[in-house]
Amino acid sequence: MIYKESETYAVPGFLANGIHAGIKENGIKDLALIFSVVPAVAAAVFTRNCFKAAPVLLDMERITAGMAQAILANSGNANAATGEAGYADAVDMSRCASDHLNIADDLVFVASTGIIGHRPPVRNIKEGMERLVRGLHQNGIPAAAEAIMTTDKFPKIACRKERIDSREISVCGIAKGAGMMEPHMATMLAFAMTDLNVDFRTLDTVFKQAVDRSFNAITVDGCMSTNDTAIILANGMAGNKQMKRNSNNLSLFKEMLFSVMSDLSDAVVRDGEGATKFIEIIVDEADSMKDAKKVAYAVANSNLVKTAFYGCDPNWGRIIAAAGSSGVRLPVDAVRLYLEEVPVFAHGKGIDGHAKELAEIMSKTNIKVFVKLGMGNKSYRVCTSDLTLDYVKINAHYHT
Amino acid sequence: MIYKESETYAVPGFLANGIHAGIKENGIKDLALIFSVVPAVAAAVFTRNCFKAAPVLLDMERITAGMAQAILANSGNANAATGEAGYADAVDMSRCASDHLNIADDLVFVASTGIIGHRPPVRNIKEGMERLVRGLHQNGIPAAAEAIMTTDKFPKIACRKERIDSREISVCGIAKGAGMMEPHMATMLAFAMTDLNVDFRTLDTVFKQAVDRSFNAITVDGCMSTNDTAIILANGMAGNKQMKRNSNNLSLFKEMLFSVMSDLSDAVVRDGEGATKFIEIIVDEADSMKDAKKVAYAVANSNLVKTAFYGCDPNWGRIIAAAGSSGVRLPVDAVRLYLEEVPVFAHGKGIDGHAKELAEIMSKTNIKVFVKLGMGNKSYRVCTSDLTLDYVKINAHYHT
Repeated sequence: MIYKESETYAVPGFLANGIHAGIKENGIKDLALIFSVVPAVAAAVFTRNCFKAAPVLLDMERITAGMAQAILANSGNANAATGEAGYADAVDMSRCASDHLNIADDLVFVASTGIIGHRPPVRNIKEGMERLVRGLHQNGIPAAAEAIMTTDKFPKIACRKERIDSREISVCGIAKGAGMMEPHMATMLAFAMTDLNVDFRTLDTVFKQAVDRSFNAITVDGCMSTNDTAIILANGMAGNKQMKRNSNNLSLFKEMLFSVMSDLSDAVVRDGEGATKFIEIIVDEADSMKDAKKVAYAVANSNLVKTAFYGCDPNWGRIIAAAGSSGVRLPVDAVRLYLEEVPVFAHGKGIDGHAKELAEIMSKTNIKVFVKLGMGNKSYRVCTSDLTLDYVKINAHYHT
Repeated sequence: MIYKESETYAVPGFLANGIHAGIKENGIKDLALIFSVVPAVAAAVFTRNCFKAAPVLLDMERITAGMAQAILANSGNANAATGEAGYADAVDMSRCASDHLNIADDLVFVASTGIIGHRPPVRNIKEGMERLVRGLHQNGIPAAAEAIMTTDKFPKIACRKERIDSREISVCGIAKGAGMMEPHMATMLAFAMTDLNVDFRTLDTVFKQAVDRSFNAITVDGCMSTNDTAIILANGMAGNKQMKRNSNNLSLFKEMLFSVMSDLSDAVVRDGEGATKFIEIIVDEADSMKDAKKVAYAVANSNLVKTAFYGCDPNWGRIIAAAGSSGVRLPVDAVRLYLEEVPVFAHGKGIDGHAKELAEIMSKTNIKVFVKLGMGNKSYRVCTSDLTLDYVKINAHYHT
């Protein structure tokens, strides 16, 4: 479930806050803090871009210990392509937070999002720190979610509660997305919190699977950022018997976490820059997962396909052309294409006579595209948005 | 040199024409014919899309003989994803042309461009054939260039004349492009004519090199069509001693052909759907050509980079982020980025203090981007256009 103002979002033992520290203009929130009252087991996934932002480099060192207690995140400045000075800034930010929180410095993770190539205004961040820490609150998660937004139109929060080992377990996550999203990773920032007691290896495995099935299976514009970061903290406050790899309840936790992460990643696509449609590309009957993925992304990242959806045009020829250019050798006569349940292509040619149903389908805001390859039994699903006039407007005018 | 109405474009022994046959509306030219008065040596390059259009499948069979005498091309309908019936239509079109021209059927090549998934209006094409053939003329090349346009704003023609072996040799080419362009192939249709006497193997090699360096080195939207076709006919009417692989003058012919083809491919980018800018991405100092290409295309196809150019924003961070996500492991501290001659990134961070020069560069319509990888000595150049509001408008409203 995505953020509703009327609900409360809280995970036992976690405090959060978000304030305006003066990185952005107009008093908009730009600095977030998540704090666990006890050190937590932590796992993370980072961008594979060669030009990793300073906070990513710092976090990659720290995650090796598998523990964390706080995440300090700012929007408005990415602290990317800022060299050694930028790295020192990230360290400086983390130290300021650890000082105010009175915890070990290497338990603080830092994340930044915004413009590339400018050092962050560390003074503003430091000046805001006392206020940020003072305002930490168990109901502060929505404020933190707001403070990491850039061109997002709404904050992204998702929560689940389930009984595991006769304890109530909470999982809650926040994310920011909008543009510059693609596999590995698909969002810029996602932070998850849980009070589950779980060992590092199990948390790490389950979290990576959840990210793979959620944020790594969406694309807005095929661009991979320098700052993409997903972190989970598990503070064990629920007091359940430590969950391990072979625990009975592992699948329930997996489900909870995947559900939270995919709610967030779906929300990121829906709020893709300028997006008016949520499009699921489901590639079936592939020989391998790799092939299925290739075809799915070729379709999902095709500007011609994305503009056709924006124009509500059932121009399936563009989908076929995109699938055919993926690099996978497709058996032309075996491939079938469906828009929702309506078949539009089979035996190497179009299927006529569904104009009315197709017009109806294309006018919807949620559309499923099925590409059946007739090669094997592997499948892959990727979610994307349409390419709109607003995407171009937003990105042509988001100036340095 | 690109088409000027005041010039004449002709190659000895070649006749051409373009008419409105009723495939498109509003009397716009939609059917082109190129005819050599004698059978010509022919070479061709086709799309690598799995879903090859019917005319591509037909031409791929016919090119194996290495000879051709006519090219029949229509716009308004791609005859792609039309199955066996569409293939029969392509055969039918070619037979109608060969009957009227009184030549062997397998010397006719067919090319189509336009909407995918609908059978071509063969009746209109056949009905127009007599008029098309009757109007064949040595100055008919511009009419043919017009008749293959789809969303192109201007016809694309380029010609060269040089003395080879004491004979005047002409090379002339026409192309259509606009959207849906990417490597292998970058345009949908390009036809070249020359009166050079040359053997098949030499023509084939030189033509493929020319296509590689021209049409395969441009991208508008990263989409590869079902119909991309480039064909050259060499009819030998210049009467030079047959040019072969080891001929002294081969390099001069190579230069002529490359110059014609790259004039055409440049024109295709300049006329990219909605394009307002012509952007050259030059990747230098790569370990391999493959790496250089990967990085160049990652930058050239990035929607964030392309919208930044549209917005005249020197947002070099997006270029770096795109380069870093190409899959090539880059030595972060060795990579340098220049906009024209202005350095903007080195040693892992941005270089300040050139705001005025950068603003000037970004306001130009021709912009060079240099990405120096610091890895080796291979380089690759790709030309692209910006991503504009008009691109989205054109492609959202080009309905089936």
